[in-house]
Order: sequence, then C-alpha cells, then structure tokens
Amino acid sequence: MGWFRKQRSAGTVLRWGRVLACLCLLGIVAGYAYDSFRDARGRDLRPGRAEQYLESVRAQGAGHTLPNIVLVVADDLGYGDLSVQGATSIKTPNIDQLAQQGVLFDNYYSPSPICSPSRAGMLSGRYPVRAHVPTVFLRTEKLSNRFVNQVMRAMNTYSYDMESIAHDEVLLPEVLKAAGYTTALLGKWHLGEREGDRPNDFGFDYFFGALYSNDMQPYAIYRNREIAIQAPADQSTLTGELTREALAFIDRNAAQPFFLYYASPFPHHPANASERFRGSSNAGIYGDAVQELDWSVGRIVADLQARGLDKNTLVLFTSDNGPWFQGSTGGLRGRKGNNLSGGQRVPFIAWMPERLRGGRTLDELASGLDIFPTVLELAGIAPPTDRVIDGRSLLPALEGSRDTSVDAEFVLLASKKPVGLVTADYAYLRATRSENSTYVMLSQGPFLFDARTDPAQSYDVTPLHPQAAAALAKRLDAWEAALRSNLRGWID
Amino acid sequence: MGWFRKQRSAGTVLRWGRVLACLCLLGIVAGYAYDSFRDARGRDLRPGRAEQYLESVRAQGAGHTLPNIVLVVADDLGYGDLSVQGATSIKTPNIDQLAQQGVLFDNYYSPSPICSPSRAGMLSGRYPVRAHVPTVFLRTEKLSNRFVNQVMRAMNTYSYDMESIAHDEVLLPEVLKAAGYTTALLGKWHLGEREGDRPNDFGFDYFFGALYSNDMQPYAIYRNREIAIQAPADQSTLTGELTREALAFIDRNAAQPFFLYYASPFPHHPANASERFRGSSNAGIYGDAVQELDWSVGRIVADLQARGLDKNTLVLFTSDNGPWFQGSTGGLRGRKGNNLSGGQRVPFIAWMPERLRGGRTLDELASGLDIFPTVLELAGIAPPTDRVIDGRSLLPALEGSRDTSVDAEFVLLASKKPVGLVTADYAYLRATRSENSTYVMLSQGPFLFDARTDPAQSYDVTPLHPQAAAALAKRLDAWEAALRSNLRGWID
Repeated sequence: MGWFRKQRSAGTVLRWGRVLACLCLLGIVAGYAYDSFRDARGRDLRPGRAEQYLESVRAQGAGHTLPNIVLVVADDLGYGDLSVQGATSIKTPNIDQLAQQGVLFDNYYSPSPICSPSRAGMLSGRYPVRAHVPTVFLRTEKLSNRFVNQVMRAMNTYSYDMESIAHDEVLLPEVLKAAGYTTALLGKWHLGEREGDRPNDFGFDYFFGALYSNDMQPYAIYRNREIAIQAPADQSTLTGELTREALAFIDRNAAQPFFLYYASPFPHHPANASERFRGSSNAGIYGDAVQELDWSVGRIVADLQARGLDKNTLVLFTSDNGPWFQGSTGGLRGRKGNNLSGGQRVPFIAWMPERLRGGRTLDELASGLDIFPTVLELAGIAPPTDRVIDGRSLLPALEGSRDTSVDAEFVLLASKKPVGLVTADYAYLRATRSENSTYVMLSQGPFLFDARTDPAQSYDVTPLHPQAAAALAKRLDAWEAALRSNLRGWID
Repeated sequence: MGWFRKQRSAGTVLRWGRVLACLCLLGIVAGYAYDSFRDARGRDLRPGRAEQYLESVRAQGAGHTLPNIVLVVADDLGYGDLSVQGATSIKTPNIDQLAQQGVLFDNYYSPSPICSPSRAGMLSGRYPVRAHVPTVFLRTEKLSNRFVNQVMRAMNTYSYDMESIAHDEVLLPEVLKAAGYTTALLGKWHLGEREGDRPNDFGFDYFFGALYSNDMQPYAIYRNREIAIQAPADQSTLTGELTREALAFIDRNAAQPFFLYYASPFPHHPANASERFRGSSNAGIYGDAVQELDWSVGRIVADLQARGLDKNTLVLFTSDNGPWFQGSTGGLRGRKGNNLSGGQRVPFIAWMPERLRGGRTLDELASGLDIFPTVLELAGIAPPTDRVIDGRSLLPALEGSRDTSVDAEFVLLASKKPVGLVTADYAYLRATRSENSTYVMLSQGPFLFDARTDPAQSYDVTPLHPQAAAALAKRLDAWEAALRSNLRGWID
C-alpha cells in the first residue's frame, strides 16, 4: 500500500517512463525492420528454373499407365478427430475404412503447424520456408494487414517475404500436368491471392474453391479465374458443392490420368455443415462438419469403385495442421500454430488396395513433405535435381517392402526458424511457436521428449539421454546453418 | 513483389505509421491506468474484521478432540503426474496408496490456474479475487517488476491491487490457531513477501521455507522471520529438509492438535531432487522431484501411523494448478496459467481411514475453495458469517453420506474477470487466460463443453444444448455483476 501511494505521487516519473518505453519499442521495430528488408533482398529467386524441369518432365513422356491421385486435405482436423483415431463424439466410418483397408501412419507430421506453409510443404516436398512461405498469408488488400505483415516481418517470427508461394518452386500439380495428368483443386488454395498467383497459375487445369481460409473476408468461391459464388458464400452447402464438383471432375476425366486435390475448407473455424448433417454428431457443428467431410470422402471413393478406378487410384487423406480452437489433439500437447505434437501430428492415410499392402498402422516417422516424392515415384516421374527435396518417398513403406524412416529426421519450423527436430526416438525442441499466437515462445527448454513413451511431450528426459540431446542440438545447429547459407536449397 | 517495392519507397509513411501506433499505445495504457487506479481505490478493505471473527473462535473453545490436519500442496503438479492418475514414467506408490485408502476426487479444480491466487483460495475458502490476489505476486523489490505490475494492472488482466493477500481475510491457519491448533507452513508461501506480510503474520506459529517460488531470486529459506539458508539455497536437498522439518514438527506437537501445511516447492521449475532420487524416474528431473515428494509424503504418513496419529489426522494432497512447461495434464487441454481443464483440474486426495469412507473415486465437482469449509466442519468450528465463503464442505461426500455437488458451480477467473463456469455437466468458457502468458486470450467462444464426454474440452456443444448454454451465460453475467458490486463478498 505504501508503494501504491508512492506510485501515485510519482505519476510524472511513470508518464515519462511510458514515453521512454514507447521510444524503445519504436527503435526495436525500426531495427528489426531494417534486418528484415536486408533479409528479403537476399531471397534468392531463380526465375525460369521450374520451367526447365517441367520441360524435362514433358519430354520424358509417359511410357506406362499413370495412376490417378486423389489428395484430400482437411483444414485444422486434429489427431484425435477421427473415430479410427479414438474419437467418440464424432463418427467417420468412411475415412476409418480407408485406414482399415489402407495404410495409417500414426507418426506423421504436417509440414507446419499452420495453413499456408503446410500446403506449400505438401505441394513442393520441401520445407515451406524454402518456398518463401514461412507463415500464413493474410489478406493483403487490407492496409491493416499490410501493416501487421510489416511489423510481424520486422519481428522475424511471423512473416513472409512475398505474397504467394515462390514461382520458381515446382509444385505437384505442375509436375503431374507436365506428365500428362489433368489436375484440379477443389477447395482452399491459400498460397497467393492476386492475379498471377492463383491455382490456375500453378498447374491446376481446374479450380473450384476459395483463395484462402473460410474465416477471411470477402469469402467468394471461384471457378477457375471467375467468381462463381459471390461473397459471402453460403458455407453450409460447400461440402456438398465440392463433392458434386469432385464427382463431375472424375466423370470428365475417367479415361485419362487425373490429380484431384480436394482441400476441404473444414473443420476450420467457422465450421459448417448442411441441413442433413447438422446435429448428426455429438461434437457440435465442428463434429457435424467432420462427419459431412467423411460422407464426402465416402461418396468419392464409392464413385471410384463403381467405375473400377479404385484399382489405379491412390487416395491420400490428411490434415494441414492440428486443431485450432475446437477439435481434438487426442491428448497430444499443443494445438494449431504450435510446434508441439498436437500442432503438427495429424492423421495420414494412404489407400490403394490393389497396389499397397493395406490394413496396417505404421509408426515410422513420416511428414507432409513426403507426399510429393511418394506421388512422383508412384507415377514414375524423376524428381527435380536442381533443388533439395526434403521429403522422401514412402512407397517402399506403403508397399510393405521396408521401413523408409531409418535415420529420418523432421525439422520443426517456427516461421523461418528451425526450433526442433523429430526422429523415430525423440522430439527435441528449443522453443515453439506459441499456440494460436504470433510469436515464438521461448520455453524453459531445450527439451528432449521420448517419442515412444511420451507422445504428449510432458517430460524432458535430457538427464537420462544427454548424448542424444547433444547430438540433436548439433543436428539442429547444422540445419540452422544450412538454411542460413542456402535457404532455397538450390543445387547448382 | 510489387507491393514489396512500393513499401520500400513508402518508407516515410511507414515510419510515421509506427510513431502513430506508439502514440495510440501510449493513450491506451494511460486510459487503462486511470481505470485501474480508480478500481484500486475502491478496493473495500475492512481492517479489524478478521480479528472479530478470530476472537469469536477463541471464545468458542474446543469442547471436543480436534483432528490434526496435514495439507500437502505440490507446486505445478498436473492431473496426469501421479501413477494413480495414469502416469507411467513416474511412480508414486505412497500418494497412490493415500488415494486407494482414501477418497480421490477426479473432478477437482484448483482455485486458479496460477500460484498465488490458488493458494489464497485454498487458505481462505473464497475466490482469490476477493482476497485481492487476482494473479501471481512478482518480486516487488525490483523496479522492473514494479513497472511490469503497473503495466499489467493497467491492462486489467494480470494485476494485483496490493503486495500481499488482504489482511482482513481470514486464513485457515489463523482460524485453526484461534481454535487451539499449533500451525506450521513448511515450503512455499507466495502471498506476500514484505515484513508484516509473511507466514508468521497470518497465523502460522512456525514457518520453514521460501517466501515465493523456487524460480524467483534471491531464493533464501527462512525459519520464521530469520533467514536459515542464504540465497541461493541448494534446492536439491530441499525436499529432504522439509521432510525432516515435518517429522520434527509432528514430534513436537504429537500430543496436541496441529495443522501442517506442507507446500512443496516442486515440481515447479526448476525441479530438483536429491542424489538418491536423481534418475529414479523415467521422466527426467521433473519426475525425480515428484518421486522424492512421493517419498516425503510416504515418510510423513508412516510417521503418523507409527505414532497412532493416523486415526485422528486428515491428510489432504493436491496441487496449486496444472503443469507448466513440463508435467502431464493427462490429455486435458491447456496448462498452468490457462482456464481450460489442464490448467485447473488437478488431483485431490483426502485420507483419514478411521473417519472417511475410503477406497472411492468421486466424480462430483469439487475445488480448492472447499478445503477451508471442509476442515472447519471437521474441526467443529463455525465459519465466519461476515463474508461469503465460496467453497462448500466436502465432509458429507468424504464420509459417503451424500453427494455435495448438486447444483454446484465453480467460477473460472482470468485474473479479475470471471471467464467461465464449471458445473457437474458442463464447462462454459467465454475466454481463457492464455497458456503460460499474461493476457486474456479471447478465443472463438463462448464454448460449451460437455464435462462428461469431453473432459479435454475439444468440442463446443452449444448447438446441441442451447438452453444450457444460455442458462450458464446468465449465471456468468450474474457472477460478473455480483463481483462488480461486492468484490470482497462482505455480508454486513
């Protein structure tokens, strides 16, 4: 109380203290801003590189039957949101069946704990920071967002260098299109919203969906380059629309190889479902949206089967990151936005009964970066050699011939910064991007978590395994140095 | 890229934008600061009130044998950190045995997700905001902390009005001392550090421990009002020291009623353990600290049994809040600092084999506020009538005569603000104090979680139970209004 009275009489001191604090803040922001400008100047773009590779794919030609690819990516669906993963309030019989007949990866990490980078990683096979997508793309039409971007970039934690994925990246739709596929994106893009940065500019023959997340405004639905449904689009009918589009796309392309990237806008907030599915789950509208997505997947798979296409179609199901404000991590620690297991460990299912040894749950380490090389190997397409591909082909694991994860490691990135490493035995974290937040939270780490006995990442076992911790620290340092010297991973 | 070049040429605009932002910030801080000063002025202290009540307790006298009370409070121990609660990397046979022979409350909430308020709630039986302990006490000797306090108070989220628990509160040690008990605090106080605000000033006859958390400096160990171990105290031997002190205190007071409040400094970061326990668990130093605490509890209980005191001693075991950077929530969502279940739901065990119907796990709603009225009822002491006691006596539940939680509700407080309500059926949250952080995070709520089917709080079931959500919203509004009009809960 004495202190309290003193404070009031010392009001002048406090006022000047605050002004001083603001000036300090200004200085810090200006300083970091300068650094980030410098950083952005050295961003090492190689225009034309992608085209050279795509030309070689076109030249190669298809000497064999190309498998169809259906990649289903749910938005913010958690590790524990499928009934096959233990959910009890939500029932997902169709996706469960894919898992039961196919291969379920129990130890799969999304490329990033947030949307845009995760999608960049899946489509490029490379750590998203290489593609200049360290974080989620905000709408840049709004001046306030530009200001936020600027400040966040200045803080070097929540930042991106450009307004779309780098055009010199090679994306899966571009490769498959060059190899003779017809390609479609149904649903969410979120790798660039301006003209020239849209799905049709990155190898998609057909696009029906939104340029970004369903909580961003204005939310319009595009058909290729034109608006098909004006903003604000009714989101309750969206899963139905996307399902119809998927069936129509398959119908149009049943006689030729196709790549269908079905990027559901759900159960991302605000989750929504049609009349028929409202109240169908015991988990509110979130569960209803998941159950409608499950229905949608079931319809598509049934259609493939009815056409006999299931024999030659790989269906992949996954999520872009852990659950946000709703959704279940299945008891894992952390959520969307966070590098802890709940933020990045999500379901991953591969289904192709005729080709893959199904009915298996694998605990070998895998990540969304593996989708690109896996699909390329399955299609017999040589991957690019002018750049590092961080993922590895899971085909041997899918076919049951061998574990592909020996010595595998996966880097956890908080925007541009490598903050952790996951191996088969451990998760090593120096820091984590904060849950639902914009900054890197320096925890009381570094932490070494036992990946086998402690998936929820509760206990630092460094005292029990000091050599493992030291080795991982060294590897992480090496990653940091490698990304600093050659962020883009160019091989000259 | 076009935008990027434009930004650089528009550097002047950005610079002025930043200055403007700082000025805005200054204005906001100043405005809130004014509010908080005004708020603090109306803090409604009633000096002398506590003394009147304590006088009545003294006058009442003990017409019966008073039961001994041993209250063990672990620091930052999570819901999942005991083997009886599912931990596999940590073994706690002694505490497990208390649970197996006693009553384990599975649905128990600590009064607050952080330290000082939680302890205020347990010792007063009232929501900690009533005792002017909305948040954790930082060290006020440091000028930087004073500044932080000032700013945080200005934001009205992470703030306290005074530098100790209010002296007009009635604390459990004061009541028991007045009733004829000898009282001791062994371990952590954290309800005021200055002279006049220390344990011996609040009814403890004996104090051996620290004034605040084991991560705050300088960390000295006091014996009553004198420093017994100079800072920095060796924390590896602390559990051993506290155990010896506990046994000595019991020895000194075996023939008279005693209240032993054993507030372990562990497993709060930096967790520590003696040579003997280092490496004893599979959960690193955190697990070792928990296992040494388990040993300590076992020693004390064995001593009570050897003396035949177990027949007339109630042993309570709990934690002040969920786990911080390490520790297991047992799959619950959120952690220390957070109003989600992982932040406040912790183990609570009551053991008194001769008196309580043991061997039971109860799922009735209970909280740390219930400790004060439960102990008073057990000791036959009339509670104060000049103030609201928010907790309720759990004695009927402990004795197995009836469920005391019918219509029970528990308010979740983010510092001063009631942000949620827990009932037997639901948890209703409008917002939550952010995990490991200082501000109230407005989530995409309000959320209604099904307490029975969804303890991890993943799914908003408002669409399924709109009337329940509306009723709880109304109750929460009523709480907010009640606290605004009579924060202290005085009954005139």
